[in-house]
Amino acid sequence: MTKQELIYQIRKKNSFLCIGLDVDLNKIPKYLLKLEYPIFEFNKQIINATHHLAVAYKPNTAFYEAYGIKGWKSLQKTIDYLNKKHPEIFTIADAKRGDIGNTSTMYAKAFFEDLNFDSVTVAPYMGSDSVEPFLAFEDKFTIMLALTSNKGGLDFQGMKINNNELYKEVLQKALTWKNSNNLMFVVGATKAKYFESIRKIVPNHFLLVPGVGAQGGNLQDVCKYGLTKDVGLLINSSRGIIYAGNDIDFAKKSAEKAKELQQEMEMILKK
Amino acid sequence: MTKQELIYQIRKKNSFLCIGLDVDLNKIPKYLLKLEYPIFEFNKQIINATHHLAVAYKPNTAFYEAYGIKGWKSLQKTIDYLNKKHPEIFTIADAKRGDIGNTSTMYAKAFFEDLNFDSVTVAPYMGSDSVEPFLAFEDKFTIMLALTSNKGGLDFQGMKINNNELYKEVLQKALTWKNSNNLMFVVGATKAKYFESIRKIVPNHFLLVPGVGAQGGNLQDVCKYGLTKDVGLLINSSRGIIYAGNDIDFAKKSAEKAKELQQEMEMILKK
Repeated sequence: MTKQELIYQIRKKNSFLCIGLDVDLNKIPKYLLKLEYPIFEFNKQIINATHHLAVAYKPNTAFYEAYGIKGWKSLQKTIDYLNKKHPEIFTIADAKRGDIGNTSTMYAKAFFEDLNFDSVTVAPYMGSDSVEPFLAFEDKFTIMLALTSNKGGLDFQGMKINNNELYKEVLQKALTWKNSNNLMFVVGATKAKYFESIRKIVPNHFLLVPGVGAQGGNLQDVCKYGLTKDVGLLINSSRGIIYAGNDIDFAKKSAEKAKELQQEMEMILKK
Repeated sequence: MTKQELIYQIRKKNSFLCIGLDVDLNKIPKYLLKLEYPIFEFNKQIINATHHLAVAYKPNTAFYEAYGIKGWKSLQKTIDYLNKKHPEIFTIADAKRGDIGNTSTMYAKAFFEDLNFDSVTVAPYMGSDSVEPFLAFEDKFTIMLALTSNKGGLDFQGMKINNNELYKEVLQKALTWKNSNNLMFVVGATKAKYFESIRKIVPNHFLLVPGVGAQGGNLQDVCKYGLTKDVGLLINSSRGIIYAGNDIDFAKKSAEKAKELQQEMEMILKK
């Protein structure tokens, strides 16, 4: 998917919502556990109920790998379902990968070719040649961690290098890499006050913003400083949406939560 | 496996060699491609031919994920084979994972429980709560990136924070985390001159050292500053060993290369 197509979908749906498919078998309705692929069945129902409200879905690979082969098959089935039924959806493999050059190329093949995701999240610690192999793929996006939403996020990201925090150095340096127009960045919603200075460094790149909902981030705060003329934000909610219900009508409950966020987004976009 | 058991194996074999199982289908002998699981067959033959010369094996997950379900099955078969046939071998999932707390717990379950590796590599960028869920597992080791062997390794790792490079800050801070005795660190062999200052920060922790061989690192240089009274090093070679041959006798050729390194190690240990 191209950036223009993503922006078109956002305008069409009045939504920049991304739904995180972080499926824990201990948290989904019990009746699904009898099926052969409960995770996929759960995802399918969530997608069917919410695809008109969201522009992106983001399975986090940890929740699939934890269930071994069957988990990986569930991931494959989920992305195949999205690609076949909803090619208009932007898909994100939340994998936070990164390795030396030839190895990052293998990861890029795994997520961009074998699974055919539109984008993958990566970690910056290993530097340019750990990320550039991902950037080499046309019409695919590489979403690099900048400032994360978790408690320990600032342990290193907040360290000062010549009065500039590490996450700012990461953003600045990444812009110098080959095909940096294929980058997006992860910035946590729990760090809303940081968005103003981040937008000075990356005024136009899309930001993937986790942390709204269960982690306590606030949508209005993020939008105040994070929105661009092309919207430029994908706001992710995982647990807040997918675990809204825990019975046979769980997907309907998820859709209600997704609709709340979408309507809030629509109001913000129309202002 | 406990640290004492690992040290016992190193003393017994006079070897601190780790063999990286980074299997690329384009590089293995063609005749294997006819089999149902060429990657596993390749690994099995390498393991059979070298297990007396090495104390650890390290499959890099990228090379398995790139081949989808079949790749993940090959990883499962490889670790099962190691655990069943060679429980004395220290196993490393080179996965470079790291995410927010509840997600890192899922990764830890994937590698420590489902696959039953002895250790997993992780990236530090997201801070304490992205690593501590791994450290919570008893008799399992978490091998955190400190200073990597690749060209871009110093892009961020070499940045100065109050005259202290980021990788040193990472080492120092990690020592304050809960269960930090379950940590090991990745330090690239191509950065041998850095080992002296690294050993001042982590005098006793094991270091996993990639970059000997194809990447140009030198074993003697690394040992000069990196060895501890308990050896404290696992030297990894991947391509230099596993692609030594490309015909029916490939595993024999790999064993010759492994033997060269083991003998060099034996001489160093006996000095």
